Amino acid sequence: MGTARSAIRGSFFDFVDDPWKHPDDEKKSARFIQDGLMVIEDGIIKDFGSFETLSANYPHVQVTHIPNRLILPGFIDGHIHLAQTRVLGSYGEQLLPWLQKWIFPEEKRYSDLEYARKGCEHFFNNLLAAGTTTCQAFTTHDATVADAFFTAATTRNMRVISGVTGIDMFAPEGSTDTPENFYNDSKKLLEKWHKNGRNLYAITPRFALGCSAEMMTACQRLRKEYPDVYVNTHVSENPTEIRVCLENHGTKDYLEAYEKYDLVGPRFTGGHGVWLSDDEMRRISIAGAAVSFCPTSNLFLGNGLFRLGKAKDPNQPVKLSFGSDIGGGNRFSMLHVLDEAYKVGMCNNTMLDGSLDPRFKNTAEAERNKLSPYRAFWSITLGSAESLYLQDTIGNFTPGKEADFVALDWTGGQTGTAWHTEVLVQDGPTTMDEAANLLFSMMMVGDDRCVDQTWVMGKQLYCQSTAKPALAGKY
Amino acid sequence: MGTARSAIRGSFFDFVDDPWKHPDDEKKSARFIQDGLMVIEDGIIKDFGSFETLSANYPHVQVTHIPNRLILPGFIDGHIHLAQTRVLGSYGEQLLPWLQKWIFPEEKRYSDLEYARKGCEHFFNNLLAAGTTTCQAFTTHDATVADAFFTAATTRNMRVISGVTGIDMFAPEGSTDTPENFYNDSKKLLEKWHKNGRNLYAITPRFALGCSAEMMTACQRLRKEYPDVYVNTHVSENPTEIRVCLENHGTKDYLEAYEKYDLVGPRFTGGHGVWLSDDEMRRISIAGAAVSFCPTSNLFLGNGLFRLGKAKDPNQPVKLSFGSDIGGGNRFSMLHVLDEAYKVGMCNNTMLDGSLDPRFKNTAEAERNKLSPYRAFWSITLGSAESLYLQDTIGNFTPGKEADFVALDWTGGQTGTAWHTEVLVQDGPTTMDEAANLLFSMMMVGDDRCVDQTWVMGKQLYCQSTAKPALAGKY
Repeated sequence: MGTARSAIRGSFFDFVDDPWKHPDDEKKSARFIQDGLMVIEDGIIKDFGSFETLSANYPHVQVTHIPNRLILPGFIDGHIHLAQTRVLGSYGEQLLPWLQKWIFPEEKRYSDLEYARKGCEHFFNNLLAAGTTTCQAFTTHDATVADAFFTAATTRNMRVISGVTGIDMFAPEGSTDTPENFYNDSKKLLEKWHKNGRNLYAITPRFALGCSAEMMTACQRLRKEYPDVYVNTHVSENPTEIRVCLENHGTKDYLEAYEKYDLVGPRFTGGHGVWLSDDEMRRISIAGAAVSFCPTSNLFLGNGLFRLGKAKDPNQPVKLSFGSDIGGGNRFSMLHVLDEAYKVGMCNNTMLDGSLDPRFKNTAEAERNKLSPYRAFWSITLGSAESLYLQDTIGNFTPGKEADFVALDWTGGQTGTAWHTEVLVQDGPTTMDEAANLLFSMMMVGDDRCVDQTWVMGKQLYCQSTAKPALAGKY
Repeated sequence: MGTARSAIRGSFFDFVDDPWKHPDDEKKSARFIQDGLMVIEDGIIKDFGSFETLSANYPHVQVTHIPNRLILPGFIDGHIHLAQTRVLGSYGEQLLPWLQKWIFPEEKRYSDLEYARKGCEHFFNNLLAAGTTTCQAFTTHDATVADAFFTAATTRNMRVISGVTGIDMFAPEGSTDTPENFYNDSKKLLEKWHKNGRNLYAITPRFALGCSAEMMTACQRLRKEYPDVYVNTHVSENPTEIRVCLENHGTKDYLEAYEKYDLVGPRFTGGHGVWLSDDEMRRISIAGAAVSFCPTSNLFLGNGLFRLGKAKDPNQPVKLSFGSDIGGGNRFSMLHVLDEAYKVGMCNNTMLDGSLDPRFKNTAEAERNKLSPYRAFWSITLGSAESLYLQDTIGNFTPGKEADFVALDWTGGQTGTAWHTEVLVQDGPTTMDEAANLLFSMMMVGDDRCVDQTWVMGKQLYCQSTAKPALAGKY
């Protein structure tokens, strides 16, 4: 059997560096090819450059032309809960009562395998419609759910990170498991799924508040036995949660509850981190660990404003992914996550510019809170990939990487979008700045309707115009 | 010529009281009629009740049945800028530089009458697509723009409040006018448009920062000569703005800059009010004046978190409308405004529950920050009508009022919406609680795609399935 080769022609936009490192010339961090060609072989990017230069080298390759779109690397959702797909947007509570009232009962339903499979279908369909091609996901305490998750991801050949979720405290009966079962389930799933196809495994203590010392010890043991897997959890999300967590674990801060068990290092992600101290951020930075910034969720549950500019301090930079945190977040779209990330950043900007209180003035940190389109889209592509140590695999269009991408329609969204974008460009972007302006428009004026097509390993898995009928029917 | 009579059959949801007054039983504030009939005569609601009871009384009236929808009063947008329709979502600045960089140049383009007319078309089409049937709008310093606004509103027979916008400072040349011209233009427009059809006039000092003492005096004189018109302006939006304003006007706080000129009373609305002190709120309450809460804008420009729970203090309640503040706000949809209003409220809730700092603990105020679906939808219908002293004209379905309404499709929005709402109801809401759950879902999970139809004075002016082609083309 020969190799399967194909190519995509269109306007490409991706990143080669962290734009926060180039505040005076963000364009240095990006690549824009107005008329580009991406050659794909067996799902891997074989060649990438201008159509004019490259096309002669591939005379027999079938080219799919995607005009009037911006083609970006597939979005990465660094923090999301499979089993909360249906109960996103549940009313009226902060984190802890919200978990008890809405989340644990719904997650329990996934122990019915039929329901779990249905949930997985909805979950992945929603991701693809949102332009998300990679996620790091929580499942439930039940190993069959994580297994269903990996099975559904494999069907789509998507690069995903997940694992059975460890929780032995705080949740109602039937929503917890013993550390011993968790250890055994994790081991079995890990050996079955880690690096099986595009699947990656994460040891997943749900959050320190829901994990006893024994559960943490089980995680520590797994991490030691399998040093190349991920650790995915929550950190420092809500003030009440933090207080109870410190009491339970007897630690000086939230991060220490994970450090105690050797969990904080490369491929560790703590979701949220709203209330991380400067010192915790410093330790995360030194460890090479990451935080997932989940603005829609942090606002929806009222947790507060993540200190984006502090996390991007060049003296102690914290690796960041951005996450929808469905269902603490209320929208699957990473464009929507960027909308609210921008707003959190601007609120921080005001608090740090000295106008409210000169004692808080920090001009450099204020500036780092401004989420330009470069910073924004880097964060949900290459930036998230780096935080997950996947920068050699996904995140941009450098040859050798996996061909996951989205085709974005800058006129999608509320009715006013088209007239708005006409002020930015006439017949499509011709410069990197114009393209960046359209990206900003898509995150602030457009929405998930901007995602016209989503491709995974060189195959189209979602197309807006054809997908709607299938999704609209009852499952 | 006889009267024109028609009727609408469907599931109706409206309000009869402020739900904040009934924290233990919010249902007392609302009406839900699962199978209802609204009889309309010459655009006015003639009768309203259950279909079973009423239909026999109107045997010859043609009934339009709108199934599978929730019919609510048309939404009211208490604070919006006509001439910022195209530049919503402009990148990277707080209020004052944002005005200089993006807003004043765009507003100036409206002095070309052709452009102003085009802008009005887009503006009203966007409002109707968002389910908004009444707005209180800023125009520009140019009287022809306000005239174009009222002309376009009259074509649609919409109830609107607006006026020429007074600014003689702070803006670049060509974006200001003299107090004398402002006075004369206002007088002419006011006599032409106030209570002409459904139009209402507002004396509109743009904001205290942009108005000299002479401009304020012109407003004071107009208010004295025409005591029944509106006053529409901004108040206490951004910390830097506030500081400069107090310096310019030599007042102890922002509100006093308007009080000094007798502008604060019934039919006065100050947009934003993010940084209003307790005492300013008290004075607004006593005066019977109003504030327009604009959460998307306050977040987009980084102004901060409006103290919703304080404004609803029963000891000094502030009349509130909610506003999109296009283009400081980035979406026309009042459903989206509710999404972010909820989030602002929840962030306040956390700050007031004592978990961060016991000194700030205020359980009652924390609770008043929770934007239930009752509070939310009251706020953008009857609540806003009350803040504008229009509760006898619009805001609910009581006979005698004008027949402005929206038909909402709870399955509209991101792809996951339909599966989500199936968990709330099966074949449409049968109880008030079920209907309220769907309303909450529409504001947090759905979006403007939930607005299926918008009717003004008993006429359908927008229908999602038919509107798209017309709006998608270039103007």
